[in-house]
Amino acid sequence: MALIVQKYGGSSVADGQKIGNVARRVALSAGDNQLVVVVSAMGKTTDGLLALAHQVSPSPDPREMDMLLATGEQVTIALLTMALHALGLRARSLTGFQAAIRTDEAHGKARIKRIDAERVRAALHAGEVAVVAGFQGLSEADEITTLGRGGSDLTAVALAAALKADVCEIYTDVDGVYTADPNIVPEARKLSRIAYDEMLEMASLGARVLQSRSVEFAKKYAVPVHVRSTFKPDPGTLVTREETAMEDVVVTGVTHDRSQAKISILRVPDRPGIAAQVFGSIAERTIVVDMIVQNISRDGYTDISFTLPRRDHARAAAALEEIAKTVGAEGIVHDERVAKVSIVGVGMRSHSGVAAKMFATLARESINIQMISTSEIAVSCVIEDKYTELAVRALHDAFELARERPAERGAHP
Amino acid sequence: MALIVQKYGGSSVADGQKIGNVARRVALSAGDNQLVVVVSAMGKTTDGLLALAHQVSPSPDPREMDMLLATGEQVTIALLTMALHALGLRARSLTGFQAAIRTDEAHGKARIKRIDAERVRAALHAGEVAVVAGFQGLSEADEITTLGRGGSDLTAVALAAALKADVCEIYTDVDGVYTADPNIVPEARKLSRIAYDEMLEMASLGARVLQSRSVEFAKKYAVPVHVRSTFKPDPGTLVTREETAMEDVVVTGVTHDRSQAKISILRVPDRPGIAAQVFGSIAERTIVVDMIVQNISRDGYTDISFTLPRRDHARAAAALEEIAKTVGAEGIVHDERVAKVSIVGVGMRSHSGVAAKMFATLARESINIQMISTSEIAVSCVIEDKYTELAVRALHDAFELARERPAERGAHP
Repeated sequence: MALIVQKYGGSSVADGQKIGNVARRVALSAGDNQLVVVVSAMGKTTDGLLALAHQVSPSPDPREMDMLLATGEQVTIALLTMALHALGLRARSLTGFQAAIRTDEAHGKARIKRIDAERVRAALHAGEVAVVAGFQGLSEADEITTLGRGGSDLTAVALAAALKADVCEIYTDVDGVYTADPNIVPEARKLSRIAYDEMLEMASLGARVLQSRSVEFAKKYAVPVHVRSTFKPDPGTLVTREETAMEDVVVTGVTHDRSQAKISILRVPDRPGIAAQVFGSIAERTIVVDMIVQNISRDGYTDISFTLPRRDHARAAAALEEIAKTVGAEGIVHDERVAKVSIVGVGMRSHSGVAAKMFATLARESINIQMISTSEIAVSCVIEDKYTELAVRALHDAFELARERPAERGAHP
Repeated sequence: MALIVQKYGGSSVADGQKIGNVARRVALSAGDNQLVVVVSAMGKTTDGLLALAHQVSPSPDPREMDMLLATGEQVTIALLTMALHALGLRARSLTGFQAAIRTDEAHGKARIKRIDAERVRAALHAGEVAVVAGFQGLSEADEITTLGRGGSDLTAVALAAALKADVCEIYTDVDGVYTADPNIVPEARKLSRIAYDEMLEMASLGARVLQSRSVEFAKKYAVPVHVRSTFKPDPGTLVTREETAMEDVVVTGVTHDRSQAKISILRVPDRPGIAAQVFGSIAERTIVVDMIVQNISRDGYTDISFTLPRRDHARAAAALEEIAKTVGAEGIVHDERVAKVSIVGVGMRSHSGVAAKMFATLARESINIQMISTSEIAVSCVIEDKYTELAVRALHDAFELARERPAERGAHP
């Protein structure tokens, strides 16, 4: 008998019929297992509630917004539990407060502090499926809080950690994590396993699958997370702790991100405090910067380049024209037509020459590299946007990602 | 500085714009007063949730139904609080569990056991309007419960009792309690005051205004209830404890009820247990009987007549045909075209001849009385339905109800 936490997102429970389908999916898993099911609000419910809020107030209070939005998941848990009863299963719905999901006071983006889960355990011991509202919790002051984007995944992972579940299954509309985007690389392969750190680095690819907050939480508490399809019975991808065999594989996947733009400030005087001034002015505009590259200075001047979300590009460029004057730089150049291509793999820790092979592969295709940034388990290059598909395919090929990795053989839960 | 509990029903908060109107109404009352505002679910929300429930389950579990329905009021409290903030008022929403409205375990029709109201008091002390979800509570086992029909009124009255509020204002789409239905009697007068017991007896008229559960609760804890219009600023009707001056008025109002039918069982053997057998078979079919009349027997036989909701009439008649045979009665007769006309007034306790005057008034209009029933403060007659308007007008006239009662002069809160 296993203890399984399952999570179904908003599109999986968008209407009564889909809730019925999820109930049948849950019933299939029930068998001998103890089941906790975490659900999100139905389809467009949250959007509807947000629209109502903005109808009555130009700037709704975050506490009241949480009070409002938390109703979405409460509706779903009640309906799913009714649907499970209709199939003859014993089940019980629990709100965030009933499941004792305790958070801090940060309305709209609360962090889970602890889960007592007493009532969840009681339901399981009574032979019931525990259906828990995702995305919501209760602060120490008994205020209703919400966890922000990806919050229901986080609820599921945190419950799995608290209950020491055997696995946390995240049901979604994709069927797993691939070695590259299958729309670009037809031979891209679904990974049966991936390490937490790899999943974090593949966030740009994985964002559609799993928020990095949930992966970090899963890593911290060693919760195995199984990302799989709501609509297909096949196993998906298991996100799990790093295993020795994984290191034999140098590169696990190729990711790309076309949502960025690049800005360079040219001939900046190389003085302490300049970078702080530049990025301070960007942060003030709540623009999140991704890669930052600054090379060694020549003649007391240097160039600073960074990437940022393409939608913030015009705002940031305008702000930086000012800053460039203030700090005595020559000026700025910016480019919207860039993409970031990355290779990711825990094996890089123990293998050398990986970056060189990536650069050589891109050179062979005559793709110019505009910026380079590396982490312990990833190498990223900024290139001209039009070469994205070519670069991803070439790298997928060069690192032989279509071949099954030894670590994956027979490795599935 | 007064402490006022206000309650706004579903039609008053049916959309964003109406919630804005209620917020402005609340703001007008705020001034120096401490305010608790109880709200229902928005307009058709509950119907929508019920439809969803029946889509996923043929017979939804009452616990899960409460879990589902309680979201309706939670949405309204959040939106109203946002709207109050937008007007510059300090306000805080509280769910049934946060307001510590403790009930028994009877899902769908829970009874309030106690209200700690600590957080409501804290909000008031902090200078905030406390916006509380009506209709919902929390059982001792921390299960979400709902109070059933008229539940939000009950929440308001119970909170007023717990907080020792100066008044509980029920805002509704009628502007008070009238001496008779103004659609039938144009000169019907809005009562400025009415005793709890009178309000209870006038349930058939008052049901649209206030459920009898709330009136009973208000009576028990001596909570003054002010029934008034959401849309007009004029004072409405104060439901309050009986005062000596009220007794000077014999009749307070005339009510009528056209939703009933009449059934008689003819020549029933007058033996112990027969009535139990007859009404037992009716109760088994969950049909609620209103008036019951049994006269003295002749030759060991008697007739039993009763009224019941018109919609249950056919079902009940079919069942009674059987029962009549079993108990050896002659048969049954039934009539859908009846109405009940009543006069109500606490003054009847100390005045005689009131019933006689009613009968004489009806006789003068040649209206035949089919059944009579009396309580301490009311006399009811069943008559042919087509005479309803005539009877109500004649009685309103005979008891001079268009004239202001001495007890009401300058009596308004």
